[in-house]
Amino acid sequence: MSAERRRLPAPVLPQRVHIIGSGLIGTSLAMALVRAGVVVSVADASPTNEALASDLSGARLGAGDPVDLVVVATPPDVTAQVITAALAEWPNAVVTDVASVKEIVQAELVATGVQGLERYVGGHPMAGRERSGAIAARIDLFEGRPWVVTAGEASSDEAVALVRGIAEATGAVVRLLTPAEHDAAVAAVSHVPQVAASLVAARLADLSEDAVGLSGTGIRDVTRIAASDPVLWTQILTGNARAVAEVLRGLADDLGQVVAALDDLATGTSADGRIEAPGARAVLATAIAKGNTGHARIPGKHGAAPAAYSIVTVLIPDQPGQLGRLFQDVGDAGINLEELNLEHNLGQPFGQLELSVLPAVAGELAQWLTGRGWRIHA
Amino acid sequence: MSAERRRLPAPVLPQRVHIIGSGLIGTSLAMALVRAGVVVSVADASPTNEALASDLSGARLGAGDPVDLVVVATPPDVTAQVITAALAEWPNAVVTDVASVKEIVQAELVATGVQGLERYVGGHPMAGRERSGAIAARIDLFEGRPWVVTAGEASSDEAVALVRGIAEATGAVVRLLTPAEHDAAVAAVSHVPQVAASLVAARLADLSEDAVGLSGTGIRDVTRIAASDPVLWTQILTGNARAVAEVLRGLADDLGQVVAALDDLATGTSADGRIEAPGARAVLATAIAKGNTGHARIPGKHGAAPAAYSIVTVLIPDQPGQLGRLFQDVGDAGINLEELNLEHNLGQPFGQLELSVLPAVAGELAQWLTGRGWRIHA
Repeated sequence: MSAERRRLPAPVLPQRVHIIGSGLIGTSLAMALVRAGVVVSVADASPTNEALASDLSGARLGAGDPVDLVVVATPPDVTAQVITAALAEWPNAVVTDVASVKEIVQAELVATGVQGLERYVGGHPMAGRERSGAIAARIDLFEGRPWVVTAGEASSDEAVALVRGIAEATGAVVRLLTPAEHDAAVAAVSHVPQVAASLVAARLADLSEDAVGLSGTGIRDVTRIAASDPVLWTQILTGNARAVAEVLRGLADDLGQVVAALDDLATGTSADGRIEAPGARAVLATAIAKGNTGHARIPGKHGAAPAAYSIVTVLIPDQPGQLGRLFQDVGDAGINLEELNLEHNLGQPFGQLELSVLPAVAGELAQWLTGRGWRIHA
Repeated sequence: MSAERRRLPAPVLPQRVHIIGSGLIGTSLAMALVRAGVVVSVADASPTNEALASDLSGARLGAGDPVDLVVVATPPDVTAQVITAALAEWPNAVVTDVASVKEIVQAELVATGVQGLERYVGGHPMAGRERSGAIAARIDLFEGRPWVVTAGEASSDEAVALVRGIAEATGAVVRLLTPAEHDAAVAAVSHVPQVAASLVAARLADLSEDAVGLSGTGIRDVTRIAASDPVLWTQILTGNARAVAEVLRGLADDLGQVVAALDDLATGTSADGRIEAPGARAVLATAIAKGNTGHARIPGKHGAAPAAYSIVTVLIPDQPGQLGRLFQDVGDAGINLEELNLEHNLGQPFGQLELSVLPAVAGELAQWLTGRGWRIHA
């Protein structure tokens, strides 16, 4: 497959771009493209939003002049319709969109027999915020974020080059996938983790206060995204239903094996504590080991290969200025932090800050901080 | 149930404590109790470990003198046997243990007809490290951590008071649960999140590099603990098999409903993109909303009630000293940070640091930092 894999053509920055839909994504994109010297126009079903987007970005209002590229940044349920209309209205322009699921859009365009699909290229800038609308737009919204470009079979290289051009102009990192690959990927790296986090968090709903009080950093990490908006996530999961269901089915199969193994172990336990359940432990160990393998594939800092860092844990008194003093001391040591994580301590007037550094400098950092009066968990 | 709930008696610090097993927990406990003025003796099946624990903690070697409390800190698979022997060998002492599952130990003691169960009280100090053994021991291992005390029906209040006494002497926060409540609680807040994280991470094993490259902070959070040791976790899950299976069964039921709803949505999607699947969206929204409810129950900083913080996001150049400069500025503002989280940006030479603060001071902090030259995502 990699031999036949489509190559990403060199980026071409279009001179004139029209953006339909001036929400968070459309307006942020307008800002970044105006900065890049592109002539940008914006349109929105709401005249107020349109005017706001224009004011914020310096883009022109409406459209009518010929353009090189049309970006459809409308709500996802009308994306395919608006793409169809845009391909007809601008017969010489490339059209792209920003919907977060791609196969359903592509399939709808093909099924309805739209002409000009060589001029259509899908896209998904993977950036967002808790807030929405033009007012929440930011010129740096896409900086350092993935922007997936999904070329259909018909998409021309010239069309892909223009979409890559605007994506890179915003500071995004472009990746080329097919629509199906994109949907399967976001199912696994985004949608399934959300479902899992929500289902794990739901187990806490009926626990006693004392039981919930035993929550440590593990469950906090696992369930952090369980605070997400149900309406938004219903839309997202609905849009990618087929791919999410497929990944979840694999997860459910594994889960069924784990539960069966645990049942074997529970019923195989005799009164004197000995456990007879051949094979059950291997099922559990395999499940955790498979998780190790998958986890190791997540890229590390700045998209680089995963690195194993050493952790230096520092006790931080819970007073203003303590973190400042600490990071001043870390800075004086000339050591770069790779990751950091502040951990809360139940009922105690201090926090534990985990500093991840390259293993070669962990000892030096611990010694340095101890010398400056910090309490270290090495 | 709360009316009949057993009350935790006032703590009583024993004068003489004997600790059997000088691994990480036993040795750390010896250190903390010696500091508290308790006369401590340690014993271990390995003379080397025993001597090391004594050297590190200042505890005496062996036992023979009468003691008030015996702490069984052996590997979990021999805990019940060692408790039984200790109850016989020290007929006037209270005996406790530190095993991470409690019902199986209690059941084994009851099933084998052990005498003196009024003198036995289970315990689970919820502290650990990646490293094990006496050499990894720390005097502050238990500080701010929960220490669950599990009283059986026979346990006397005097016995519970002594176990509370040593736990609080280490700086731990004591919670009283029944063995069954404890096991159900750790299943939900620790063991099930581990299984879920591992199963989600396992989905990444067969993804393409490009697909894994789309991983954002959500899946990083959800799968952080998926790097855990398979052998250790097989032991933990085996020990709490019944309770973990029960919680996972509830999760699997919810998961089955979500998959069925997604299947309905996928097959109910017509070629023109309209989706007909009555009730399916409600299943998804309910699953996410139940996750919201459960997530909101996790206690916030320092065991206090959950608080909603405002997040101020700062762009941090990837150079030594930048975090120091930032926290210096935050400290100068006199604003206390509640949480912080460093987020990596794919392929970009900076990170995003999320500072969580009380909502009332978020605007002030953002303005202050902007004034000092920081780039803020408000």
